Amino acid sequence: MGQAKEWSIATLGSHSALQILKGAKDEGFRAIAVCERGKERPYQLFRVADEIILVDSFKDFPKVEQQLIDKHAVVIPHGSFIAHMGIDETERMRARYYGNKAILRWESDRSMEREWLTKARIDIPHIFDDPARIDRPVIVKFHGAGGGKGYFLAKSPADFAQKIESHPGKKYQIQEYIIGVPIYIHYFFSRLTGELEIMGFDKRYESNVDSIGRISARDQMALASVDPSYVVVGNSPLVIRESLLPKAIEMGESVVEASRGIAPPGLFGPFCLEGVLTPEQRFVIFEISARIVAGTNPYVQGSPYTALRYDEPMSTGRRIARDIKEAIAQGRLDLVTQ
Amino acid sequence: MGQAKEWSIATLGSHSALQILKGAKDEGFRAIAVCERGKERPYQLFRVADEIILVDSFKDFPKVEQQLIDKHAVVIPHGSFIAHMGIDETERMRARYYGNKAILRWESDRSMEREWLTKARIDIPHIFDDPARIDRPVIVKFHGAGGGKGYFLAKSPADFAQKIESHPGKKYQIQEYIIGVPIYIHYFFSRLTGELEIMGFDKRYESNVDSIGRISARDQMALASVDPSYVVVGNSPLVIRESLLPKAIEMGESVVEASRGIAPPGLFGPFCLEGVLTPEQRFVIFEISARIVAGTNPYVQGSPYTALRYDEPMSTGRRIARDIKEAIAQGRLDLVTQ
Amino acid sequence: MGQAKEWSIATLGSHSALQILKGAKDEGFRAIAVCERGKERPYQLFRVADEIILVDSFKDFPKVEQQLIDKHAVVIPHGSFIAHMGIDETERMRARYYGNKAILRWESDRSMEREWLTKARIDIPHIFDDPARIDRPVIVKFHGAGGGKGYFLAKSPADFAQKIESHPGKKYQIQEYIIGVPIYIHYFFSRLTGELEIMGFDKRYESNVDSIGRISARDQMALASVDPSYVVVGNSPLVIRESLLPKAIEMGESVVEASRGIAPPGLFGPFCLEGVLTPEQRFVIFEISARIVAGTNPYVQGSPYTALRYDEPMSTGRRIARDIKEAIAQGRLDLVTQ
Repeated sequence: MGQAKEWSIATLGSHSALQILKGAKDEGFRAIAVCERGKERPYQLFRVADEIILVDSFKDFPKVEQQLIDKHAVVIPHGSFIAHMGIDETERMRARYYGNKAILRWESDRSMEREWLTKARIDIPHIFDDPARIDRPVIVKFHGAGGGKGYFLAKSPADFAQKIESHPGKKYQIQEYIIGVPIYIHYFFSRLTGELEIMGFDKRYESNVDSIGRISARDQMALASVDPSYVVVGNSPLVIRESLLPKAIEMGESVVEASRGIAPPGLFGPFCLEGVLTPEQRFVIFEISARIVAGTNPYVQGSPYTALRYDEPMSTGRRIARDIKEAIAQGRLDLVTQ
Repeated sequence: MGQAKEWSIATLGSHSALQILKGAKDEGFRAIAVCERGKERPYQLFRVADEIILVDSFKDFPKVEQQLIDKHAVVIPHGSFIAHMGIDETERMRARYYGNKAILRWESDRSMEREWLTKARIDIPHIFDDPARIDRPVIVKFHGAGGGKGYFLAKSPADFAQKIESHPGKKYQIQEYIIGVPIYIHYFFSRLTGELEIMGFDKRYESNVDSIGRISARDQMALASVDPSYVVVGNSPLVIRESLLPKAIEMGESVVEASRGIAPPGLFGPFCLEGVLTPEQRFVIFEISARIVAGTNPYVQGSPYTALRYDEPMSTGRRIARDIKEAIAQGRLDLVTQ
Repeated sequence: MGQAKEWSIATLGSHSALQILKGAKDEGFRAIAVCERGKERPYQLFRVADEIILVDSFKDFPKVEQQLIDKHAVVIPHGSFIAHMGIDETERMRARYYGNKAILRWESDRSMEREWLTKARIDIPHIFDDPARIDRPVIVKFHGAGGGKGYFLAKSPADFAQKIESHPGKKYQIQEYIIGVPIYIHYFFSRLTGELEIMGFDKRYESNVDSIGRISARDQMALASVDPSYVVVGNSPLVIRESLLPKAIEMGESVVEASRGIAPPGLFGPFCLEGVLTPEQRFVIFEISARIVAGTNPYVQGSPYTALRYDEPMSTGRRIARDIKEAIAQGRLDLVTQ
């Protein structure tokens, strides 16, 4: 049996670290931010870190890993964490890591991700392997295109053939274009309680695509230069129609269930399904993130959903800390860390 | 005189039931959710219900009505409640019902609703009975069109004549098209305090109309298939320009005042005015909902407006429960239920 | 040394007065609203004012100024305050004023504002003095155009020449048109702590420009009458990508630092940088407001950012009151008022 105060919680200073560190402190842990030199100001000003460890680059994480081990730190991964460290380095890490490392390859490889979602009976958009078969609106995505630069829509094989000419030699994927509103569903599954929780929903704020609707159609045509890009620069809060919750819960539970078969002991902690909601009130999912995503950042004080279940402000960051605290109290930290 | 704990609050498990049930518990009531079998998970996971009564369909409500009466339940209507039960069945109900049943026909009949709003001196859009008189942009709405499917805009009698050809034999209404931003104003009027309160504002999240602006004008023209639909799938929080509040308050009070003449003892409890705000800062109202609407769901923890008046989180659901609690304490449950 | 309870906080009843008055009460001050007759209802209904002083018009403020002085009131300026009073009258005011009056001319004069932002090394849009030099998309703004009425986009000298013909004799400014999502950054700088704080971010809700994206491109072209206007009618909450916070903090500190040179003792209290975020994650700033702006109104209960630093709900209004309270406690009210 142990106590939170003998342990630390550490993460990289970026992405969703503010809520992770604040949540750690709220649950009684020491909070450690590993920051790139020159990027540490937010973690000082917002007073969320008991200790800031500076590195020249996140790539230097291995140099401070032993320090974290000595401080009894549990390391919390987030989106930037995996992006900066890479999967190989994350798998190699010896410091205690919150989450199931075996799941990482399943979410980062597009075809494995589709296999997982399919096993979980989640609706995903159709992929056209042959442009000749395009029979509905599609979006053509280029590999490695930062923020979706150059993505275009097409409605037929002929339309596609004409538009692809401007992109010679590029690798692309032709995806069914679903017209519906974007939706991000934030879940938490605890191995200790065995229960799925809905932590909230959000809308992303993407530059420049969320501003082009503010340009009249006439002016867009006049400028002749408005190409949408999809760089996420923020998030705003959202609740969904209550009658859609049973389906949202079912999807979350299916994804957890399916993960047990492909990557034992399966997915736990925070995760996110990312897709659209169609006018027929159907969820079509493009992606799964098997860790905390920035879409939970509007909910440092808890969301309208966590306020139903918890009598205190419960951010996703704090929920992680509580999961770890409960595991420590039961002497079962092995259940939530690797 | 009575106490909340001897009473229950019950509602159908959908729409805004989470905040209604949570609010009931916060005010000391037993919370009962009547759920369709297979749709009960949200009410379990969020732990808002002391009891869940399962029915095969909401149409079976009459079968459980006696149970609710036996449990001293006050039934709270919401949008889905009226939609599922129908007005006749709601009027017939013997279980205690929060609200004034006499108001239901006034909000559900389009012409009675216009009469009510007109009596209250609320600006409403002009209706063109004769297409030949179209002298400004109009929106043509079809009767019973789910989510606004097929609605189209027209700017002149000729434009209308051409576009209506694709919809032979359909019944329609020609409404002035007001270009302005959508706004939903959430009110609460208590017969016990005699005061109007503003509970907040929201923006709806409608599929697919809230995503078409993310498609560039060029791509919309290319796809040739982007027809807007207006299915509400979510809500997001909003505050309005403070100098517009006196007008918003005046409109709420006028609507309550006018309701006393048409349906004594008049409107009380939560209600909502739904419309647009024009660039001239004029409210034009399309609809009134004489009960709790889903646009209050972002405010389970209270809104920026309820936080001014109350020192505790005051959702609209909880405000209802408090109204009932105060009525019970005064021995005047007859003031708020029928 | 003094105590909050011997002092009052007063402001004009409009703009952001609700949170200013509520914040004043939360910090132990008497809260006084000076309201135009007929506009006082919000301040009564939300119960934020200990006293309401009625005037026929805000222009009559000087008539009640002695009353405020007698009540030991500190007057808090907001956007409507300066708009209604004018700079001359504000500078003349003898009642204690929270803020640095010397900064007012720097924010209200467009060229002085550009000089200040340039000194602070903030990216601002390019201004074209000569239409012949237009080499990228520009927005043409007319002087004194309420809510941006008539503003148009152009992409070349020829395009400009053609479009300006519809506006004979009007004074205009040709500004580089940056395609990116609008962002409003809310800061607070305290002279007592010497620290910058980020109070939050918001998106404005502008009529009608935030509704035109809901009209399909086809219908916009058909109506031939959709001219965007930019009248702010509301605000909604937003968080930004965490990795952008170091830059946001740096900009805030630069602006404060630069203000010390141009208007000693420099900017303090709440202020706001208003601009866009480009797909390259670059902030381009159009305007600075050197006082509380309405974009903080969503955060009466505090924002996701203030919740990190403060254990109690900290609106910008309350943060002002606390600054004054701390100044009083230290016997240094001269540090924050003039």
